[in-house]
Amino acid sequence: MTDLQQSVDWTAELSSRRLKFRQLLDDAGCNVGLVFGCDGHAQHFRYLTNFVPVLGDCWLLAAGDLRCFLTFQWQIVEAIGRSGIDKWDAAFNLVPLVVDALKKARPKRVGLAGMERMPVPAWRALVEGLPGTELVDLSPSLAMLRRRKSPLEIDRLRAAARLTDAMLDAARTSTREGVSESELAAQLSTIPLASGGRCAFETTVVSGTEQPVPIRMPTARRIGRGDTVMIDLGAEVEGYQADATRTFVVGSPSAAQQKVWSVVIAAYEAAVELARPGVPCRDLHRAAAKVIEAAGYQVAHRIGHGIGLATSYEWPSLDTEESPLEPGVTICIEPGVYTPGAGNMKLEDDVLITDTGCEMLTRSDRGLELRA
Amino acid sequence: MTDLQQSVDWTAELSSRRLKFRQLLDDAGCNVGLVFGCDGHAQHFRYLTNFVPVLGDCWLLAAGDLRCFLTFQWQIVEAIGRSGIDKWDAAFNLVPLVVDALKKARPKRVGLAGMERMPVPAWRALVEGLPGTELVDLSPSLAMLRRRKSPLEIDRLRAAARLTDAMLDAARTSTREGVSESELAAQLSTIPLASGGRCAFETTVVSGTEQPVPIRMPTARRIGRGDTVMIDLGAEVEGYQADATRTFVVGSPSAAQQKVWSVVIAAYEAAVELARPGVPCRDLHRAAAKVIEAAGYQVAHRIGHGIGLATSYEWPSLDTEESPLEPGVTICIEPGVYTPGAGNMKLEDDVLITDTGCEMLTRSDRGLELRA
Repeated sequence: MTDLQQSVDWTAELSSRRLKFRQLLDDAGCNVGLVFGCDGHAQHFRYLTNFVPVLGDCWLLAAGDLRCFLTFQWQIVEAIGRSGIDKWDAAFNLVPLVVDALKKARPKRVGLAGMERMPVPAWRALVEGLPGTELVDLSPSLAMLRRRKSPLEIDRLRAAARLTDAMLDAARTSTREGVSESELAAQLSTIPLASGGRCAFETTVVSGTEQPVPIRMPTARRIGRGDTVMIDLGAEVEGYQADATRTFVVGSPSAAQQKVWSVVIAAYEAAVELARPGVPCRDLHRAAAKVIEAAGYQVAHRIGHGIGLATSYEWPSLDTEESPLEPGVTICIEPGVYTPGAGNMKLEDDVLITDTGCEMLTRSDRGLELRA
Repeated sequence: MTDLQQSVDWTAELSSRRLKFRQLLDDAGCNVGLVFGCDGHAQHFRYLTNFVPVLGDCWLLAAGDLRCFLTFQWQIVEAIGRSGIDKWDAAFNLVPLVVDALKKARPKRVGLAGMERMPVPAWRALVEGLPGTELVDLSPSLAMLRRRKSPLEIDRLRAAARLTDAMLDAARTSTREGVSESELAAQLSTIPLASGGRCAFETTVVSGTEQPVPIRMPTARRIGRGDTVMIDLGAEVEGYQADATRTFVVGSPSAAQQKVWSVVIAAYEAAVELARPGVPCRDLHRAAAKVIEAAGYQVAHRIGHGIGLATSYEWPSLDTEESPLEPGVTICIEPGVYTPGAGNMKLEDDVLITDTGCEMLTRSDRGLELRA
């Protein structure tokens, strides 16, 4: 059961991350660190442990040594193997355990990560349990550490992109008249599972031309001739998540479909063109949005966001972030236009910013037409 | 696209739930209600809206009318259809929108549900934005409303159980030498997806006899002759989640496997025997635990918990809850014994408490042996 054991490259990677975290604590004058994670928001915790529970909260206490706490005890053997950390405890009522352990660590100043998602009762228990102890928010600096991906992270993101390409290739082959959105989504979703990855999020299939909506869950609707079919999916490998979209037309695209698609392609190309170090993140959004608006359509959502241990929650959010792209940053670029008559049309790829430009991580055929 | 529309039975169900919620607000002297949900913890919100976003926070503001807020705007068309509520807004930075709308509702006293998972910054923004307004925690009383399932809820849980049985039947057919845990989990996971349901949680397959651990993610390990194979899975239908487990031995069970399995069966029967109105929840746990401990094994986890809009988080937790079972309560019963030599052995079924006893919701063949 080697995938329950920590591989050699993870040992070195985790040591390096933990050293940097200790440095953050030192720089902030904290003798103790505390990292909180919960369902869907445990990226800081995972970054430092290479583990995230399938369900429940997770806490990492960094005092003299490292110690972890979970809501459910089911996965502790797995967690020890993946993290290399020996001390794990679990309780359904978890907060008192954490507060007690934190008190015993005799904290003078606590560097806290994950406060932005910490529930009110946990926060109150910390404040009441440690009167007079200063709690310093280290989430922003830990998030900053995670921006530029390491060689190991890029390796995993490339693997996730390859699996995602396999899903997209299968989507192109399997999209046909008569298959339902749900059946298609189910079939595509097994691809990463069967090779030991998982879906980064629920595979979405939206078909038809009359009721566009940027995303929704797949339905029992059967795909028909002339439909636009938008498929948004992503594979995850060791926590690293890809996120890509292809749009197909079943049969020959109508004039309306061709027109909208040409706008999507132009918006995509305008953003990819700017995907290089030094360009402010927001410029990619603006360039693509300008193309969409100039063609008379509405910008329905941001043109992209970071990918890594998360997708939609990962830095940067391309519509608002002003700081420049840097080598090692990974993003998705995903312009879409949603109009009655042409349906949901979106093209999305994952991109690694390199020293000189960018590398396309997902590369599956981008064509609108399904060839027989 | 009928599954984007609210069906007739949902309209009546939601009206009834919302009336009861208004009554809770009135009883607490609150002129405004506010319900918070987030990833994995949006059951209160879903109960009142029949919708939960695939990602992000969700807020329901009940003032003169109902109004909702989401982190991501993707699914608003779907949300309107499912909830029958017209007013939805979305923003990545959501809290200021909610606070602003709440202020405009001129709250005197706000009945708040979901505070137990509300992140610190949202809470601070509420308190700072509404100086002098009393915020009353209504989560416990809303949770109480959700304990006894309505006929519609029982219908959906039965449907989820039928799909779960189909997954377990397929597990029995597909468990064989040479297939990997991941392949098997992937195959089983498509079953609910293909019929428009989804997996309630990630399907788990744990094989072997030497490294028992109550649960872990499936690995690339290939199933071999003599292995114990534990498969824990569940389907979800319109938010309602089933949760069941079967254990198989590939080939003839050894004496060790037979011995442990007989303990699991006896523990399961001891708990099921007590599954009727009036019996304190904790008694089921104690009865099963007594059987396991009397046989010289450790109780590795609670013997069961509620099922409904969640599994592991749903009331009751059978190990600690002292209040009695009531008609309409739905639980799972899941004793397991995890020992080197016999491996992971768990049996789990979902149960509806009826007026006089119980109804088994999941019923797939419980036998340990795979028949050829």
